[in-house]
Amino acid sequence: MKRSDLIRQIREKKSFLCVGLDSDINKIPRHLFASEDPVFEFNKAIIDATKAYAVAYKINTAFYESQGLKGWVSLGKTLDYIPQECFTIADAKRGDIGNTAEQYAKTFFDTYSFDSVTIAPYMGKDSVAPFLQFPGKWGIVLGLTSNEGSKDFQLQMTDGMPLFEKVMHTVSEWGTPENLMFVVGATRGEQLEKIREILPEHFLLIPGVGAQGGDLNTVAKAAMNKDAGILVNVSRAVIFAGNHLDFAGQAEKAAREYQQQMAAFL
Amino acid sequence: MKRSDLIRQIREKKSFLCVGLDSDINKIPRHLFASEDPVFEFNKAIIDATKAYAVAYKINTAFYESQGLKGWVSLGKTLDYIPQECFTIADAKRGDIGNTAEQYAKTFFDTYSFDSVTIAPYMGKDSVAPFLQFPGKWGIVLGLTSNEGSKDFQLQMTDGMPLFEKVMHTVSEWGTPENLMFVVGATRGEQLEKIREILPEHFLLIPGVGAQGGDLNTVAKAAMNKDAGILVNVSRAVIFAGNHLDFAGQAEKAAREYQQQMAAFL
Repeated sequence: MKRSDLIRQIREKKSFLCVGLDSDINKIPRHLFASEDPVFEFNKAIIDATKAYAVAYKINTAFYESQGLKGWVSLGKTLDYIPQECFTIADAKRGDIGNTAEQYAKTFFDTYSFDSVTIAPYMGKDSVAPFLQFPGKWGIVLGLTSNEGSKDFQLQMTDGMPLFEKVMHTVSEWGTPENLMFVVGATRGEQLEKIREILPEHFLLIPGVGAQGGDLNTVAKAAMNKDAGILVNVSRAVIFAGNHLDFAGQAEKAAREYQQQMAAFL
Repeated sequence: MKRSDLIRQIREKKSFLCVGLDSDINKIPRHLFASEDPVFEFNKAIIDATKAYAVAYKINTAFYESQGLKGWVSLGKTLDYIPQECFTIADAKRGDIGNTAEQYAKTFFDTYSFDSVTIAPYMGKDSVAPFLQFPGKWGIVLGLTSNEGSKDFQLQMTDGMPLFEKVMHTVSEWGTPENLMFVVGATRGEQLEKIREILPEHFLLIPGVGAQGGDLNTVAKAAMNKDAGILVNVSRAVIFAGNHLDFAGQAEKAAREYQQQMAAFL
């Protein structure tokens, strides 16, 4: 997907909501287990319920991989079911040397037709660059994450700045705002303004709103740019808003509330 | 697998060779395409040819994931075919926040019964710790890698030392030499002695010998400890030693030569 198409969709839906399909088979409503593929049935209902309010869907591959082959089947069917206009993210956090990174890029861009994949930066340029060679496809590189462990390395001073800033300065030279985004956790509001100075044009994928405690207003005020420039991911607070027969209705309500808050900023 | 079992096997086979099954479907001999699962047939022949000389097998998941479902089938069959006494490594370089890391650990330790999985450290403690909760299973954390891009971040000074040293000091506090190894590229011979000072007891997984140019003698002299303490991975230089009808014979010859060199150090 082109950057301009993503921005157009954000304007049309008045939303920068990304719904995270962290569809843990142990948390989905029990009545779905009567179907052949409960995870796909769950995702299908969640997508139907939220597609008016979401501009992107993020599939956390771990929850599918852990189910073995049938998990990958659910993943493929889910990806195919996501409406064409929505931006799709394989949240896979891959990262390896060049010839292996090429295989991962092929996995998510060719074998599965995701628009983007998340990437861990630790191994440097040749682990990131192969993801940036596909027209219309995106690499989304980990910058500052929303978890407790982000302090262990990301916040350590490196070359006169926190490591995550060094990563942003360095990685942003390898691609453009047309094929590169960064992950920045919403629980790191105090750093968002500084990050927007470092990366004035890039889209930021911002997880951590909802179950992880991030605040939408803080994020929007600190991180939006003239093109919106952010995708705010909410996973558990939308998809597990309810856990009974009306789970999809509860998810719709949660997604609509996020969208309405977002509309005020657009 | 327990550390003591791994060491016993190293002593018995007089080898610390790990064969990397980077079994690129575009590089395997063409005559194998007559079979239903060419990648598995290739791996089966390679394992049969090398199991007398190898103490470990490393499956680079990217080469299987890129083939979609049938790739995961090949991966599962290959893992099942590896002899029980050999240490198995899922070279998957996963790393994500706690609840997601748990799913990845479940993927490789429960859904697939690998002995170990490689982990990217960028997201810190809660992304690594879930892999260290399984008795007899191992996390193998990226330290200093063998690729050009390792200079981008791993060699940057952080807290008074290169980032990879900071990673080793920090991560080694999260586990023990019984459940934690580190990846150190063989192309980084000059740093191996220093790394062995930081990590006197841990096993090091050392890729980069062969196609990537690392030298076995340098590695062995700098990095071995009283328990051997290293697994040297060779991928392409063994599995693609030949590319015709006699590919397995060529792989056997290459593996035997590495084993004979290693025996001199044991």
